[in-house]
Amino acid sequence: MTRVAILGATGYTAVELIKILLRHPEAEITALTSRSEGSPHVAAIHPSLAGRLDLRLEDLPPEVVATRADCVFCCLPHGAAASVVPKLLAAGTKVVDFSADYRLSNAAVYEDWYGLKHPDPSRLGHTVYGLPELFRERIRPAKLIANPGCYTTSAILPLTPLVKAGLIDPSNIIIDAKSGVTGAGRTPKLTTLYPECNESISCYNVGRHRHTPEIEEIVSAGSGHATNVIFTPHLVPMDRGILSTIYCVPTGPVTEGQALTALREFYDDEPFVRVVEHLPGSKDSSGTNFCDITVRAVRGRLILISCLDNLIKGASGAAVQNFNLMFGYNETTALL
Amino acid sequence: MTRVAILGATGYTAVELIKILLRHPEAEITALTSRSEGSPHVAAIHPSLAGRLDLRLEDLPPEVVATRADCVFCCLPHGAAASVVPKLLAAGTKVVDFSADYRLSNAAVYEDWYGLKHPDPSRLGHTVYGLPELFRERIRPAKLIANPGCYTTSAILPLTPLVKAGLIDPSNIIIDAKSGVTGAGRTPKLTTLYPECNESISCYNVGRHRHTPEIEEIVSAGSGHATNVIFTPHLVPMDRGILSTIYCVPTGPVTEGQALTALREFYDDEPFVRVVEHLPGSKDSSGTNFCDITVRAVRGRLILISCLDNLIKGASGAAVQNFNLMFGYNETTALL
Amino acid sequence: MTRVAILGATGYTAVELIKILLRHPEAEITALTSRSEGSPHVAAIHPSLAGRLDLRLEDLPPEVVATRADCVFCCLPHGAAASVVPKLLAAGTKVVDFSADYRLSNAAVYEDWYGLKHPDPSRLGHTVYGLPELFRERIRPAKLIANPGCYTTSAILPLTPLVKAGLIDPSNIIIDAKSGVTGAGRTPKLTTLYPECNESISCYNVGRHRHTPEIEEIVSAGSGHATNVIFTPHLVPMDRGILSTIYCVPTGPVTEGQALTALREFYDDEPFVRVVEHLPGSKDSSGTNFCDITVRAVRGRLILISCLDNLIKGASGAAVQNFNLMFGYNETTALL
Amino acid sequence: MTRVAILGATGYTAVELIKILLRHPEAEITALTSRSEGSPHVAAIHPSLAGRLDLRLEDLPPEVVATRADCVFCCLPHGAAASVVPKLLAAGTKVVDFSADYRLSNAAVYEDWYGLKHPDPSRLGHTVYGLPELFRERIRPAKLIANPGCYTTSAILPLTPLVKAGLIDPSNIIIDAKSGVTGAGRTPKLTTLYPECNESISCYNVGRHRHTPEIEEIVSAGSGHATNVIFTPHLVPMDRGILSTIYCVPTGPVTEGQALTALREFYDDEPFVRVVEHLPGSKDSSGTNFCDITVRAVRGRLILISCLDNLIKGASGAAVQNFNLMFGYNETTALL
Repeated sequence: MTRVAILGATGYTAVELIKILLRHPEAEITALTSRSEGSPHVAAIHPSLAGRLDLRLEDLPPEVVATRADCVFCCLPHGAAASVVPKLLAAGTKVVDFSADYRLSNAAVYEDWYGLKHPDPSRLGHTVYGLPELFRERIRPAKLIANPGCYTTSAILPLTPLVKAGLIDPSNIIIDAKSGVTGAGRTPKLTTLYPECNESISCYNVGRHRHTPEIEEIVSAGSGHATNVIFTPHLVPMDRGILSTIYCVPTGPVTEGQALTALREFYDDEPFVRVVEHLPGSKDSSGTNFCDITVRAVRGRLILISCLDNLIKGASGAAVQNFNLMFGYNETTALL
Repeated sequence: MTRVAILGATGYTAVELIKILLRHPEAEITALTSRSEGSPHVAAIHPSLAGRLDLRLEDLPPEVVATRADCVFCCLPHGAAASVVPKLLAAGTKVVDFSADYRLSNAAVYEDWYGLKHPDPSRLGHTVYGLPELFRERIRPAKLIANPGCYTTSAILPLTPLVKAGLIDPSNIIIDAKSGVTGAGRTPKLTTLYPECNESISCYNVGRHRHTPEIEEIVSAGSGHATNVIFTPHLVPMDRGILSTIYCVPTGPVTEGQALTALREFYDDEPFVRVVEHLPGSKDSSGTNFCDITVRAVRGRLILISCLDNLIKGASGAAVQNFNLMFGYNETTALL
Repeated sequence: MTRVAILGATGYTAVELIKILLRHPEAEITALTSRSEGSPHVAAIHPSLAGRLDLRLEDLPPEVVATRADCVFCCLPHGAAASVVPKLLAAGTKVVDFSADYRLSNAAVYEDWYGLKHPDPSRLGHTVYGLPELFRERIRPAKLIANPGCYTTSAILPLTPLVKAGLIDPSNIIIDAKSGVTGAGRTPKLTTLYPECNESISCYNVGRHRHTPEIEEIVSAGSGHATNVIFTPHLVPMDRGILSTIYCVPTGPVTEGQALTALREFYDDEPFVRVVEHLPGSKDSSGTNFCDITVRAVRGRLILISCLDNLIKGASGAAVQNFNLMFGYNETTALL
Repeated sequence: MTRVAILGATGYTAVELIKILLRHPEAEITALTSRSEGSPHVAAIHPSLAGRLDLRLEDLPPEVVATRADCVFCCLPHGAAASVVPKLLAAGTKVVDFSADYRLSNAAVYEDWYGLKHPDPSRLGHTVYGLPELFRERIRPAKLIANPGCYTTSAILPLTPLVKAGLIDPSNIIIDAKSGVTGAGRTPKLTTLYPECNESISCYNVGRHRHTPEIEEIVSAGSGHATNVIFTPHLVPMDRGILSTIYCVPTGPVTEGQALTALREFYDDEPFVRVVEHLPGSKDSSGTNFCDITVRAVRGRLILISCLDNLIKGASGAAVQNFNLMFGYNETTALL
């Protein structure tokens, strides 16, 4: 049994994480934190957890959390995460960090895209990126995992095999991504108010979404080829799910079948990547840790289509997959 | 041509009102107010109005508004409205007030349900309630109109004819009402965040929603019989629309046909009440100023079903209907 | 390990059932049937099951199904179910039937509400109704279980304790129920086409929905008091979830606290009924086997509010709960 | 006053057209047709029209329709339209055809994409394409108008000015388009059943959607440059609205400002194209005849974003705009 804590337990990724961990036979949730006043019961914040978990959300310092938990899932915002993680590691706990703080390898790139000085730059460049399909063996022994972003996973998984196999031009990639609204978090704001985004589709942060450098860096690392992307995120009126439509230029005459084979061979033994022939909808993988991928050859292009649940394979499911690897459990425990 | 102003122009009822008024050949919008910093252009607040109206939202005192407008639509919250309305009236403008401030006739009842001392109690008891189907002739000469609430209109219109005709017991009425999310306003809050209310139905303010005394008072006034209701509002994952299912006890053996006839006779000449035989869905009247009503006799009860668009017949359409009456225009102008 | 088969595996309850059974350590799905041409792979019908289950949907006679399975979940329509179930039972398999065919005890009542002569009337009156909270000990040894309807469970669970305790008048109950669209099945029809029911709420089958006699019979059986209800179902633009708002007349001066206590005592040890103090939304129990219940005292009435997932506690979760009881497994297996 | 008829009046474009025409002071609807049995009243098919229009849907031959109407809006499917249109024209009525039958100029291309021999090939190549922003002067005197497709309008309007100005490469254009579900029509089918497409985003007809050749032909005709596109349509869980994200390669160093200026100059006097600086959401133009367009320069690309209501500017609003031009009415009548 491994004792786990969740920092920043008021949001959508946290409640999803709690639900997965409640099904995990080897994990015991021992602490939840937030800055909410009065240490509310978790069911007061997340009514779906009524009767499931008898814990309060407490405003605890990292040192206290470390005494209660062997593994900490850190769901704090970027900036805040990297201020706390060093203390947790120093106290001997392992950490799966949901923020972007440890995903990039370069503090200057981080500062450029996130607009703040990195609080813990010395760990950049050697923190393991928690995508088991690419970095499984480095995840197992790691003390700190940078859990991937939701959009990034939906782009990295389909792209890496084709870039690595040399089938597509890594410098000419367009990612048109569509996400459900939980991806925008649980803090009330006008743009995610129900009547604002219901019955509407819109794009946002065109050309400047922070997942751009993350996609480029990890596809480059995973494939061995420097990669450049155009990334356009869209907000879709649904709770969860991401569909990415990715336009690639083949390096030569590549058939749909060849591209599909490259994907299949790459993910042959992967429990959570499904290479399919039909066009997947985001609902097919909703509520699961699967990423569905297919490809079409159209007028000299290869179009990759990938779907996943932004809260599970795009966040909390991936985190538990990493947790399972870090603590020697079966990788699929609590995830099927 | 009548010059009109809208106070509190940032919300959903205001933008709907603007769209209706833009189609009105005799109305010219001359001022919009809000406390937003920097006097933003109306299209910056409501992008759907881009290219439609070249006005800024200004923080104007009522005295200045009164110099620009012959009629003011006041979309301010309760309490705030009654602090401003006396000044507008004193300056000679007519006012259609969207708040609850002038809907009830008794300051003590107001204080009881709204939790604040009424700022302008002397006008209670003789302000005209702006439901043309009941009070048309009193609306025409009025200087101040209390525009009805959305839920209340959906309950008053089906109930009044049957109570007045003595067909149902006015002391034993259950109103189970369901509303789209725009009814909750445009101020960001957790309960109306997209992922909180999407894919969910819930009830709220059970037994203590503020439309309760308004329904009772107006049905009593319109029918001549003291009325008591149980009123339960529900939040439905859709933008707009209200469906009220109203359970009544007939005073004797009343057939479905008799009840339907009573409704039809009452609303025979009304341009915006449609007494129908089928079961209406809220979408049938969405985007219109219609209220659809039908009735079913079930196991000794009469069940009334009514639908309307909470932003139009439940707010801004009704307001323009009142405006048309007050200024001598055809009652349906801009509303069909 | 128990071998299970699903008859009529193309619908929403079937795919939900498959997902639950895939998590069940003691159940092995051995056969799926449908009349689809060409024996399609299950993932061609339900793409969310890609890579999860390698079975085809076959058009199999009950005798063949019986050789492959120890338990059959029958998801056929009413009428069709009772034509097949006798053969399955004769062949020695146990059956959980999702249809209404064995829920009522009287063939004349069945014929009256369902408009057809019952194909297997001799089993009516002594088939066990599969609501563990009321009939657990009778479910354990049963060979055939009539799995409850979705609306009915959402009404029976809150009503039975209060009727049994004599706190409410069993002859004066109004159930205003709201359901997501999966409740209407997966056969394409105009009324459940996306643009017809999206952004709309409507009621249907007012006074003549077939769950009416089922609610009355089971609350009567469970409480010992003859019960009469008015039942009005509504269609809500969401995939899943039911919220029932139930208006009751107390038999005497009953406080909210007393009603809550009666509910709590009745469900004290139940793993899947959560008596809560807050107003639950249907989303709180979405994706789970929980039924959430609370009560409010309003102006001399008691208003019960209950929520559940129509596909889980209202169908497939309840079926697996029954399966667990019938085969001696822990009742919560695969359901938490 | 012009007498108008609508052929194929059961669908979503037809009901939208009726609503627009009811606001048109110079149009009188005199006939509606469908093959529905029993000549149902229009309000039985479209309950939102209760009390608005007292006509039945009749199964009328074109010769009879022609005696009743000066203008026929033909909402029949492709193939069916071109079988009827010649008879209407022969009888002297003008026709606005909603189908694809007269949009392409080449019968072989038509046969290739639509899979059937064109019933009226002699009119191809000189029928006017009804996009007033490009072909206004040819529309005015036309007897037959090919009303544009919804996706095509959302692509043609942003692309044409930039291709014409030589700012982008016409052979390297990627259109990633997202549409609400009404675009798929009102015939019940599994893919547009509520629970299938709600809470999901998916793409379909990748590389083989029939709007592809239409976009290419019209942008080529409007700009004078042969154009090739990759077009990927997506289905979004909302009723109406299209957002197209269009990835272009500039022909040289083109700034965002230059591209915006080119769009503004092209559409300077257009009443229904709004070139905006913010990122529009599809809801901004929902329920209107506007098309909103903006552009972003990102990493050496130009990304065009356009939004419109697929039922209005993408179908019935455009049709009335054409009607206004053909009959000499103010172009914006009934459309603002």
